[in-house]
Amino acid sequence: MLYVIGLGLADERDVSTKGLEIIRRAERVYLESYTAVLLVDQQQLEAYYGRSVILADREMVESQSDEILADAHRIDVAFLVVGDPFSATTHTDLALRCRQHDPPIPTRTLPNASILTAVGATGLSLYNFGQTVSMVFFTDDWKPDSFYDRIAENNTLGLHTLVLLDIKVKEPDLKALARGKIIYEPPRFMSVAQCASQMVEVEETRQQSVCGKEKLAIGVARLGSDGERIVAGTLQELSDADLGPPLHSLVLCGKRMHEMEWEYAREFAIDREGFDRIWKRDYAGKV
Amino acid sequence: MLYVIGLGLADERDVSTKGLEIIRRAERVYLESYTAVLLVDQQQLEAYYGRSVILADREMVESQSDEILADAHRIDVAFLVVGDPFSATTHTDLALRCRQHDPPIPTRTLPNASILTAVGATGLSLYNFGQTVSMVFFTDDWKPDSFYDRIAENNTLGLHTLVLLDIKVKEPDLKALARGKIIYEPPRFMSVAQCASQMVEVEETRQQSVCGKEKLAIGVARLGSDGERIVAGTLQELSDADLGPPLHSLVLCGKRMHEMEWEYAREFAIDREGFDRIWKRDYAGKV
Repeated sequence: MLYVIGLGLADERDVSTKGLEIIRRAERVYLESYTAVLLVDQQQLEAYYGRSVILADREMVESQSDEILADAHRIDVAFLVVGDPFSATTHTDLALRCRQHDPPIPTRTLPNASILTAVGATGLSLYNFGQTVSMVFFTDDWKPDSFYDRIAENNTLGLHTLVLLDIKVKEPDLKALARGKIIYEPPRFMSVAQCASQMVEVEETRQQSVCGKEKLAIGVARLGSDGERIVAGTLQELSDADLGPPLHSLVLCGKRMHEMEWEYAREFAIDREGFDRIWKRDYAGKV
Repeated sequence: MLYVIGLGLADERDVSTKGLEIIRRAERVYLESYTAVLLVDQQQLEAYYGRSVILADREMVESQSDEILADAHRIDVAFLVVGDPFSATTHTDLALRCRQHDPPIPTRTLPNASILTAVGATGLSLYNFGQTVSMVFFTDDWKPDSFYDRIAENNTLGLHTLVLLDIKVKEPDLKALARGKIIYEPPRFMSVAQCASQMVEVEETRQQSVCGKEKLAIGVARLGSDGERIVAGTLQELSDADLGPPLHSLVLCGKRMHEMEWEYAREFAIDREGFDRIWKRDYAGKV
């Protein structure tokens, strides 16, 4: 059996008690290590689980899944995923391979907390979210802006948009690679500030009033942990906000944002007066 | 401290190990018992947690929250919620009351699995969902159809819609009430079949091709448990499908449904040939 086990968002103790039992008895334990990370290191995880854990990077999951699935039709293999297993399509892909395996490998998924719902901590109603988008690190010559069209679509319905922020782990250093050396760059995690400023940058080009400086947004960091932080403000304000260590995410507020959502979210505002003024002027159900 | 602790979806062992520690040491433990239920009974929960649990019905949470919050500025109170704490706005409301309490009561939320993400088990990408809607039990003279407008909005963008199904627990028997007696009706949980047939019924009145008989949908039951069941088909087919005991939910597929989603979902089809034919004709990215 392949068990795909969600670990939740913060630390080693967010696993379910059922998940922990399976991890402790499984033959092999893998940890998917490239779409998200916990806020604690591998040693702390291994100490608590009482198991050593094999890190599964993108290459292993996408190209060497045979190794992960070896003998899983007769032994138990645990594949651990930070957050909820279905938040990344890669894991659907792994499940498809189990079905197509000869003999087929039975799979079982243990759901857990995901940023997609934990973001309710902002006070925004999960019923008022449209499609989720991703934001990647811009470079000088690569600034993909398809997120802009998705947010524009959500905006037509007045819905909030959750923006998931890029992380780069185990990225090869391209200059070293050109010299024939494989050196990995230090991991990078996009901050709320960088996301907000990239959004404003794209707005300046596209100019459809989708994510300009005065749009209201809420930045979140380390949700579900003791050090959780939530900051609300305009995209301009968030471009300068420091929410501390990763992981960060951002929600762009939709105009349907109703009074109870506002009442809750304004407590997190950098400038409460400004937040209230803009909410009353541009939001408050004005779709 | 008020701890709002998500219990996950299936049974007593879906709580996180961190959550379990808090439950075991808290002064009082409440279980929210009206927006969702676990698939196991209260005794099983209490036996595993090693604590007796106070059932908190809607009236207690909405009108007698003082009782729940009593002394919580100096002792630990655990408030357990099936699924994820933020999936119901009631809990945001409770957190607001903690802020306004004199002295303020610190709160901490432990996220957990939610149907909003566990629905990824269908193979549909969580990035392709629009707003979530609710479906209530129709009666002869009350058939609220605002869900129809929300789904129509999602449809314009080709997005999937998660439909959460009504549950009725501790509803007073109105006939007995008229005779001055309070008798509670047995709990009722909407099935995928009933939801699908209500959707088709409303389509017959509204006729905007939002949720007619030939629309593709996926019914899910008891997600995250051993007895999880997933069935795909037209709304017509799902109107006759029996997915067994609660809880059920339904996803109406959006036209943006891409090939990898289809490939995964078709495995659950009641009539695979028919499913493929309709997907190719009406879906496959045809927004």
